[in-house]
Amino acid sequence: MRWYGGIEAGGTKFVCAVGTGPEDILAETRFPTGRPEESIGQAIAFFRGQRVPLEAVGIASFGPIDPDPSSPTFGYVTTTPKPGWAHTDFAGAVRRALDVPVGFDTDVNVAAFGEHRWGAAQGLDTFVYLTIGTGLGGGGMVNGKLLHGLMHPEMGHMRVPHDWCTDPYPGCCPYHGDCWEGLAAGPAIEGRWGRPGESLPPDHPAWELEAGYLAYGLVNLICVLSPQRLILGGGVMAQTQLLPLVRRKVQELLNLYLQVPAITDKIDDYIVLPGLGSRAGVLGAIALAQTLTP
Amino acid sequence: MRWYGGIEAGGTKFVCAVGTGPEDILAETRFPTGRPEESIGQAIAFFRGQRVPLEAVGIASFGPIDPDPSSPTFGYVTTTPKPGWAHTDFAGAVRRALDVPVGFDTDVNVAAFGEHRWGAAQGLDTFVYLTIGTGLGGGGMVNGKLLHGLMHPEMGHMRVPHDWCTDPYPGCCPYHGDCWEGLAAGPAIEGRWGRPGESLPPDHPAWELEAGYLAYGLVNLICVLSPQRLILGGGVMAQTQLLPLVRRKVQELLNLYLQVPAITDKIDDYIVLPGLGSRAGVLGAIALAQTLTP
Repeated sequence: MRWYGGIEAGGTKFVCAVGTGPEDILAETRFPTGRPEESIGQAIAFFRGQRVPLEAVGIASFGPIDPDPSSPTFGYVTTTPKPGWAHTDFAGAVRRALDVPVGFDTDVNVAAFGEHRWGAAQGLDTFVYLTIGTGLGGGGMVNGKLLHGLMHPEMGHMRVPHDWCTDPYPGCCPYHGDCWEGLAAGPAIEGRWGRPGESLPPDHPAWELEAGYLAYGLVNLICVLSPQRLILGGGVMAQTQLLPLVRRKVQELLNLYLQVPAITDKIDDYIVLPGLGSRAGVLGAIALAQTLTP
Repeated sequence: MRWYGGIEAGGTKFVCAVGTGPEDILAETRFPTGRPEESIGQAIAFFRGQRVPLEAVGIASFGPIDPDPSSPTFGYVTTTPKPGWAHTDFAGAVRRALDVPVGFDTDVNVAAFGEHRWGAAQGLDTFVYLTIGTGLGGGGMVNGKLLHGLMHPEMGHMRVPHDWCTDPYPGCCPYHGDCWEGLAAGPAIEGRWGRPGESLPPDHPAWELEAGYLAYGLVNLICVLSPQRLILGGGVMAQTQLLPLVRRKVQELLNLYLQVPAITDKIDDYIVLPGLGSRAGVLGAIALAQTLTP
């Protein structure tokens, strides 16, 4: 058996695991994200503490990052405002400590990769994976490869319609105010209603509004990428009343312009939750690691 | 010498050419778009009238279309509201008449392909080509291949912020009202100001507003696709005062969130006009035809 390590490095917590896939995780740990030397050190110590040798490690990192293997700063967290993390050689530190190949991409691209391998995106070549939680971000594949381009997507920073009359909340993105993330991620729900989304009842008007903002962004993703499926993960989607509202609003906004059965007839199969649940990131990191050995 | 045919089928006019590239066009014709049997017939007659045999023909078509070669309706214009054109087997008619391989894609994807081959996208693997004219549409490549996914992009139908106080114009998209196209394509300029954009002076407030809407959509494309370049074609971009305004507004909206030199320092090289000018579509169609023969 060949074992692989995965690190899901989120803004609030790290998840590390050793295994070969969803049915075969040998060990797993999670801890709050601290300063880089501390958190990366904890991850390395966890892997060193396993009794099996690792073939490779995959990292799903919060960003912005440099995911370009041909770049001198490949594997770095780049310009994040997160204290201490700007310009951190994350992948390099892990590679030097463990002496194995290290894969590195955004948290959402790696989760997308996990969903492609074992979850809700199997067999697709163009799809989007979104996380809607403390932030709002997206990754995915186009033509069977992870989206990169100039750098990597920052889907949460799209601009969407904001009706200030019905929703005077100004948004909470420190860069853009009422961008998609600033209006629709978890902190925006809390900022707008004065208490966390988890404490709002399922019939609270917050959810209708939230579904509307999510639908605006999804419609934009559909118009730009023409994905074969949209996978919505993250803590906010744990509100089970949300997904049906989102599907209906996407159809309303598109207004039969795109006469594709996937959208007009089978939207329950088009906008879905992650097949791997909350484990898409760490499992994707293991899947990414598996691409690094022959 | 091996000769190829290209058809750029726009909503208002057809352009047909025979040649091998931008420097070598043997013959070219253009005529208004009529009903399908009429326009497709004129194109076929033009190609039959040439004294050289054609190896293949490429078609850049208005849409929506079916560009999937594995689909039974490949080569069809599908659900367009354009009179007579819904469910027209465009590529099939050309193939049967001329007995050569026929390539078929959206007008904007084919123009993107032309720009990649001979224009402003040479050497890039992820970029967007937009046309801003009687409509607003976009295509492009991701990971070195044209964007398709579930169907094809419909970038003009993204939703963008619309401040009804400063701009009470409701938008003119028959499906979505104030989607990006409904606010920013040529007919929206004319609808909002009561006369065609070409008749408005360069310092008219129309252009500042137009640049703002274009910038919203471009920012969304940057956030979703992370393109290495954005190429803006179409009649509206003939207003030379527009491009510098658009570049500045994109930078303002991104607000240094993406610290990439291409955007922060070299935006004049990042948001550009087509290298092939207004000939990207028909030349792209010839480039597409060239991929069909060994």
